[in-house]
Amino acid sequence: MLDEERKEKDKLLPDARRIHKKNVAPVDTAVSLPRPAGSLYMGNFAAPALGKVRAAVIGLGARGMAMLKILAQLEGCEVVALCDTRDEARRQALAELREKGHGGATSYGEGAHAYLRMLEKEKPDAVFIDTPWELHARMAMDCMESGAHAFVEVPLATTLDGLWAVVDTAERTQRHCMMLEEVVYGRHELMFLNMVRRGLIGDLLHGEAAYIHDLRTRTLGDDSGSAAWRVRHYAGRNGNLYPTHGLAPVAQYMNIARGEDTFERIVSLSSPAIGLSSFAKRTLPHAHRWNNTEFLCGDVNTSVIRTQLGRTILVQWDETSPRPYDRKNLILGTTGALADFPLRAIGSFVPEARHEQDADGGHSWYTGQAARDDLYARFDHPLYRRLAANIETLSPRVAMDYIMLYRIVECLRKGLAPDQNVYEAALWSSVGPLTEKSVYEGGAPQIFPDFTRGDWRRTTPTSYSQDDPIAGTTADSP
Amino acid sequence: MLDEERKEKDKLLPDARRIHKKNVAPVDTAVSLPRPAGSLYMGNFAAPALGKVRAAVIGLGARGMAMLKILAQLEGCEVVALCDTRDEARRQALAELREKGHGGATSYGEGAHAYLRMLEKEKPDAVFIDTPWELHARMAMDCMESGAHAFVEVPLATTLDGLWAVVDTAERTQRHCMMLEEVVYGRHELMFLNMVRRGLIGDLLHGEAAYIHDLRTRTLGDDSGSAAWRVRHYAGRNGNLYPTHGLAPVAQYMNIARGEDTFERIVSLSSPAIGLSSFAKRTLPHAHRWNNTEFLCGDVNTSVIRTQLGRTILVQWDETSPRPYDRKNLILGTTGALADFPLRAIGSFVPEARHEQDADGGHSWYTGQAARDDLYARFDHPLYRRLAANIETLSPRVAMDYIMLYRIVECLRKGLAPDQNVYEAALWSSVGPLTEKSVYEGGAPQIFPDFTRGDWRRTTPTSYSQDDPIAGTTADSP
Repeated sequence: MLDEERKEKDKLLPDARRIHKKNVAPVDTAVSLPRPAGSLYMGNFAAPALGKVRAAVIGLGARGMAMLKILAQLEGCEVVALCDTRDEARRQALAELREKGHGGATSYGEGAHAYLRMLEKEKPDAVFIDTPWELHARMAMDCMESGAHAFVEVPLATTLDGLWAVVDTAERTQRHCMMLEEVVYGRHELMFLNMVRRGLIGDLLHGEAAYIHDLRTRTLGDDSGSAAWRVRHYAGRNGNLYPTHGLAPVAQYMNIARGEDTFERIVSLSSPAIGLSSFAKRTLPHAHRWNNTEFLCGDVNTSVIRTQLGRTILVQWDETSPRPYDRKNLILGTTGALADFPLRAIGSFVPEARHEQDADGGHSWYTGQAARDDLYARFDHPLYRRLAANIETLSPRVAMDYIMLYRIVECLRKGLAPDQNVYEAALWSSVGPLTEKSVYEGGAPQIFPDFTRGDWRRTTPTSYSQDDPIAGTTADSP
Repeated sequence: MLDEERKEKDKLLPDARRIHKKNVAPVDTAVSLPRPAGSLYMGNFAAPALGKVRAAVIGLGARGMAMLKILAQLEGCEVVALCDTRDEARRQALAELREKGHGGATSYGEGAHAYLRMLEKEKPDAVFIDTPWELHARMAMDCMESGAHAFVEVPLATTLDGLWAVVDTAERTQRHCMMLEEVVYGRHELMFLNMVRRGLIGDLLHGEAAYIHDLRTRTLGDDSGSAAWRVRHYAGRNGNLYPTHGLAPVAQYMNIARGEDTFERIVSLSSPAIGLSSFAKRTLPHAHRWNNTEFLCGDVNTSVIRTQLGRTILVQWDETSPRPYDRKNLILGTTGALADFPLRAIGSFVPEARHEQDADGGHSWYTGQAARDDLYARFDHPLYRRLAANIETLSPRVAMDYIMLYRIVECLRKGLAPDQNVYEAALWSSVGPLTEKSVYEGGAPQIFPDFTRGDWRRTTPTSYSQDDPIAGTTADSP
C-alpha cells in the first residue's frame, strides 16, 4: 500500500530523482501557482513543543554517522531508529548507539524503501536525511507525510520541481523542513552575523561565497563512499552543484527571504571540465569507469546573484582544482568589510582604524592571531558564547554540527521556529538548477522562484538567541 | 584648416567624447565591417627602427608628469614637446625637463586644440596621451593621422564606436597605438607570465582580475585633479569603468587575442551606488555640487568573461569602498595556481608540495617573505632581471612605469613590435562599454567585438625578451 501511494506521488514529481543527462534545466524559473487552500505559509512557523525528540537517521555514510554521534549525546533527544541499505553500516551505527546509551534503536535496511517502513512503524518526531543528493527531496516529503519534521543534508533538491514539491509538502503537512546547512553555525559566520546586525560595516553592498575544496581523491578514489553517486552529478550536470555552504551565511547577513531582501536573479558561467578526467587518467587504470566517462561539469563555476535591493553576491564552486580550501565568506558594507580564509576585517571598530585617512586608499586588513582574539573577545555571537563550554574539545568542523543539532533539538523541545526555514533551504538550493540553466544558455540571467509566494516580506530574521541584536522582533504567528 | 578637418572626422565618430547620460550603451557589440582596402592588420606590426625617439606628452597631470620624468631619463629618447591647457603645469614640466637636460622642448597650451598645433609643428615620433578618459580616442587618432605613434593611458576609449575608430585609424595610418597599461610590467605579473609559459600550473582554467582601490578622497576631494572629470563618469555610467589594470595581466597569461584564445562574452552586475554620495554627504558642504549629483555607477561591479576556449575570468571593480587595495591577479591551472595581494602560489614547483597528497583537499598556499624570495630567485621574468639594476631605487609602482617606457623606447629604436598592440588595448577597454550594456540589461551576456576581424589567430604571443620561453615563435610579417 505504501508502495502504491509512492507511485502516485512520483507521478506528481517527475524528476526529483533524475540526474540531468543532457544539462536540460527547467524553463519556468520564476513561475509559481497560488498556494493551495489548506496549506500554510511556514516562514515563521513553530510546531508544538516536544518534551523529548524521538529522532531517526536515514543514510549512515560519513555525514549520517557524524549526525548520529552528536544526536546520541544531546539531552532530550533519543535516537529511536536508523536506516541504511548496507548491513555493515547499520551494525556499526547500532554499536555506536548502544555505547551512548541508546540501546533501543531499531535498524531498517532491506530494499530501497526500507525508510518508508521505518517511518510507518517508528513514527519518529524528527528524521535526519543523510543520503545521496538525488534522494533528498523524495525522502523529505515522505518524512513529512508520515508526520515527522525533516532535516535534510544540502542541497534540499537538485531540480526546481523537486524544491517546489518539498515546499508544497511542508505547507500542506505543516511539518518543519530544515536543511542541515551547518556552516551558518561556524564561529566566524555567527560572529559576522552579530557584527553586521550591530551595524559595524554600515549598509550592505556586496557579498562573496565559495565552496573551493579539492575533493578529487574523495570523489574518484573510493567507490564505497560518495564516489558511488556524487560523480554522476559531475558527469551529467554543469553549474554550481554545491552552493549552500558559502552562500547561506552571506544570505543570513543580508536577511535574504526574511523581511529585508531576497534573491532576484543569477548569471553563471563555467570553466572547461578538465580536472576530474585528468585526475582519473593519472591515478586510475585505463579501463576504470571514470576513465571512460565524459565529465560535463566545468571545474570552476562563477556566478553572480543580484538581490531585490540591488546588492550583489559572487558565488563560486570548485571541487577539482589543487588549491587551498576557501569559502570566501566576504561581506562588504559602506563603512567596512569582513572576510575569511584567513579571518580579516576593516572598519571603525578596528583599533587605530586607518580607513578614510589615506588619500591613496591605503587601508590594510586587521588580521592575524591578535586581531582574531580581539574580534572573538568583542564580537563572538551570543549563541556561540552560550555553547562554548559544550564544544571546547571539538574541532571547528564538528563544532558547527554540534551547535546545529543542539539548536534543532532545543527549538523542537521548546516549540520555537527552527533557525532555517524550508524557503531558505529551497532558495539556497535553487542556485544549483538555476546555474545549470544559465550556463547552458551562455550566462543568460535566470530569475529566482519566490518559494514564499511573496510572504518573505513578513518573515522575521533568524534569531539564534534572546541576546541577539534582532531579538525582540515579533514574529507574526501562523 | 586643421579645425575643418577635425570637424569632418568628428562626424564619423559620433560619440568619442560623450559621457553616457542615461547609460545607453551601443547595441551592435559583435558587429564589424570588413577591413577597408589599403588598411593593414597591425597585430604583429613593427615600424621601421628609429635612431632616436622624439617624444611629446599631452596632459601634464599626475600621470603625465610621471611619464615625463621617466622619458627624460631614457637613453635615445628626447622630449621635444609637451601640452597642457594649464599654464602652471606647463611651467613645472618645462623646469623638470631643463633639469634633466631636455632644454629644447616646446610647450603648447592655448585652447583645447593646442595639441593639434603641436603635432603639426613638432612632428614627434611618439606621443604620450595622459588626458581625461573621454579625450583618449580622439587624441590618439589625431596623433596617428599626424604620423606619430600613439601611447594612450587606460582606457583606450569609453565607447565601442571609439574603440573601433582607433583600430581603423591605426590600420589605415599604420602607426602603433599602444595603451599605457603599466601593470603588465609589475614584477609579480611578469613572474606569473614566466611561470605560466613554463607550464608550471598546467592547462589554464580560470583567472581573476580586480581594481579595488579606495579613491573616494582623490575622486571627490580635489577639484583640480581627476575629480574635475572622473566623477562625471561615475555620475552618468554604470558598469566596470576601469577594468584593465587587473584584466590585462590575466589576458596575457592566456595569450588572449594572440594566437591561443580570445574573449567571447561577458556578463555583469553592479551593486547599489551608495559610496560616493554618502562620502560626499559626510565630507563636503551641503551645497557642494557632489552633494547635488546623482551617482548612477554601482559601487562594486562584478563581471565574468568566458573565452573562446571556455575559460572564465572574474573581473571586479570598486573604487568607493573602505577596504584594502587588491588586483586579485589570480591564475588557476589544472596543476596549480598563482595569486597576489598577498603573493601566494601552489603547484609541484613549491618545495615539499602537499598538493594531491591529502584526501581532504588539505592544500596550503606557499606564501610569506621566504616563499616570495624563493619564487623571485627561481622565476623572475628575464625582462625584469635585465632591468633590475635600472629600477633598484624605484618604488614597485614607479618601476612598472619605468619598464613600460623603457620597452616602448627600446622597441621603437630597434624596430620591434611593441609589447601590446592596438587590438589588446581595444579588447581590454571594451569591458567598459560592454559591462555598461550588460548591467543595463540585468546581466544579459554581451558578445565581445573581434577588433582583429579574425586575425588574432595569426598573432604571436607577447614576447618581452629573447630569453622568454615563447621567444623563437615566428611572427608573420605584416
